[in-house]
Amino acid sequence: MKKNLHFVGISGSLRKGSYNTMLLNAAYKLLPEGTTMEIVEIGNLPLYNDDLQSGSLPEPVSVFRKKLSTADGFVFASPEYNYSVPGTLKNAIDWASRGKDSPLVGKPVALMGATQGMWGTVRMQIAFRPIFQFLNMVPVNKPEVLIGQAQNKFDADYNLIDEPTISIIRQQLKELATLATHAQIIKEVTTEQN
Amino acid sequence: MKKNLHFVGISGSLRKGSYNTMLLNAAYKLLPEGTTMEIVEIGNLPLYNDDLQSGSLPEPVSVFRKKLSTADGFVFASPEYNYSVPGTLKNAIDWASRGKDSPLVGKPVALMGATQGMWGTVRMQIAFRPIFQFLNMVPVNKPEVLIGQAQNKFDADYNLIDEPTISIIRQQLKELATLATHAQIIKEVTTEQN
Amino acid sequence: MKKNLHFVGISGSLRKGSYNTMLLNAAYKLLPEGTTMEIVEIGNLPLYNDDLQSGSLPEPVSVFRKKLSTADGFVFASPEYNYSVPGTLKNAIDWASRGKDSPLVGKPVALMGATQGMWGTVRMQIAFRPIFQFLNMVPVNKPEVLIGQAQNKFDADYNLIDEPTISIIRQQLKELATLATHAQIIKEVTTEQN
Amino acid sequence: MKKNLHFVGISGSLRKGSYNTMLLNAAYKLLPEGTTMEIVEIGNLPLYNDDLQSGSLPEPVSVFRKKLSTADGFVFASPEYNYSVPGTLKNAIDWASRGKDSPLVGKPVALMGATQGMWGTVRMQIAFRPIFQFLNMVPVNKPEVLIGQAQNKFDADYNLIDEPTISIIRQQLKELATLATHAQIIKEVTTEQN
Repeated sequence: MKKNLHFVGISGSLRKGSYNTMLLNAAYKLLPEGTTMEIVEIGNLPLYNDDLQSGSLPEPVSVFRKKLSTADGFVFASPEYNYSVPGTLKNAIDWASRGKDSPLVGKPVALMGATQGMWGTVRMQIAFRPIFQFLNMVPVNKPEVLIGQAQNKFDADYNLIDEPTISIIRQQLKELATLATHAQIIKEVTTEQN
Repeated sequence: MKKNLHFVGISGSLRKGSYNTMLLNAAYKLLPEGTTMEIVEIGNLPLYNDDLQSGSLPEPVSVFRKKLSTADGFVFASPEYNYSVPGTLKNAIDWASRGKDSPLVGKPVALMGATQGMWGTVRMQIAFRPIFQFLNMVPVNKPEVLIGQAQNKFDADYNLIDEPTISIIRQQLKELATLATHAQIIKEVTTEQN
Repeated sequence: MKKNLHFVGISGSLRKGSYNTMLLNAAYKLLPEGTTMEIVEIGNLPLYNDDLQSGSLPEPVSVFRKKLSTADGFVFASPEYNYSVPGTLKNAIDWASRGKDSPLVGKPVALMGATQGMWGTVRMQIAFRPIFQFLNMVPVNKPEVLIGQAQNKFDADYNLIDEPTISIIRQQLKELATLATHAQIIKEVTTEQN
Repeated sequence: MKKNLHFVGISGSLRKGSYNTMLLNAAYKLLPEGTTMEIVEIGNLPLYNDDLQSGSLPEPVSVFRKKLSTADGFVFASPEYNYSVPGTLKNAIDWASRGKDSPLVGKPVALMGATQGMWGTVRMQIAFRPIFQFLNMVPVNKPEVLIGQAQNKFDADYNLIDEPTISIIRQQLKELATLATHAQIIKEVTTEQN
């Protein structure tokens, strides 16, 4: 019954030394057995414009959506800007959400965030809940990955070195794999019945 | 005591026939006496990147922030994407929010939204509350401008023709002017006292 | 594989002529085949007090929690008070949420709301999202049951007579049954594997 | 121009050893010069019922609303239950919000929260934003009082002993006084002009 699971990971920050990009790279190394992940860039996407999606999509958008369409689940690692989702990441989601064949709809998702401050992106994560609802995505509810004081949790080579954080990321990714596996089981069982 | 008030208006949609751009243009014509508004574009801004803001800002960002810095208050007219703020608009806000001299911080703001559906961007407007809190902006709480079925409220020349909607926009803009005037009064009185 | 499903329904309003209680009664009549629902009262619960839950629970709380523990899923029908969840309903949820054997945790839930105004409790429903996350409940994402102008949708005998509303309630309850059935399937399959 | 300011303080927790009640008592001792505060109980209020508010209000509700009506501003100190506002506190707010003479509407408010966990009630505070909007209340945006690990910040006699926390409460209360003073100034100036 089990087959390999493929995830797509997206960082909400474009800056080179981003803790959230480091976090996503750390997650890559902590994936459960039997899962793979491709990290997909969003910095080359144009600003979303409804006019552009009526005809053929801009090339970077088509490529982006195609990569997402292969995913059994998503990993978003994002900073918090102005107590909410970064515009850059929301722009990518807006592009991915449109049309009947959105690669996001109905998929499980793990949300993580890192920040130098204390509050570990908790408000950004709250802001995602209605977005997940609209897209009918199934978020991992627990554990939450909320990393404060990120500057103390990575070494000079950008490796995550904080054991409790490593452990909680492992758990969250395992939970993502469980949700994706459950989706497969349901699909198989309900197909058999028809 | 009274001086003229200047507002800056931003549309959250880039598409040509956007109801929200129409709405902002309608608001322009409904401004209270003694107020002016400049409508500022956001479609030419790059995607926000923290690296870019450490040195000199990209030219379009500097121009954008300079225009915003003249404002006694803001008018945002925006669609709702995925039950939240459009990435395009959030991107503009992220650029405007950074640094010690953010042109948004502490300013009053009127939020409006139009949509072809029933729900009039109510979830987008809810999503703005934490953003306003972080930026210490003072939103007009009432009335709210939530325009559903926008396709029935503008004529073929993009003029707003729905009287109840016209009336509520007038009230909201008047309230925005009141908040901006109050800020001036407080500034004068507290300056006198020092 | 299929067994009957049992739901528990709760109205967020205590008033006699409550549209939300009518809505819950309407939902009772629209349940999918193979499902039952018990409507449980919350008006006799004391105000939540952490001291009271350390020892033996107050009698009405024990009875309430026992009824909830039988549920394969929940139906909440609630008004919106002050753009949020009514205190009365939140109080019931607070009582039901505590301890290791919370009858809510992990269960699917359908949320509905009726109001005399236009906005159909949309802000109350948004306010529920973080609550569902904390309780690891699985909400029906679509369709949403948001009933505005409720006074026009029930007859003098409190029967729901608006066909589009009837249809959407049917769909939401069917979706709730699907989520509950999926939970059963997953439980069986994962048990077999062990 | 200055007159004394009077605040009303409410704790969102009913339990005897509540950190939030301690916090409110600490705030009492940290009030700025020229301000007073009455701490008002909410544990004796009935569950909100719309039927009860059409005629004469239940005695405890009338008394509660009368006390609130004297306030130039409010201080809410509350735990977070299920990522949201406690039902007990929301119930009190629901009672205070109704009718044309609500004692809450238009008033400034300072929100604080204490918890034994890490996250300092941040989600409860986010959940309050739409409530404040509906009631047209003017919240202190900064500083926020978010007290995690409360068990380490009070001594055995329930005194707040954590200096950074003391300092931030002082600032928040001072800001509340500023908002209330501004409201008085605006009232006087606009009255003079009429």
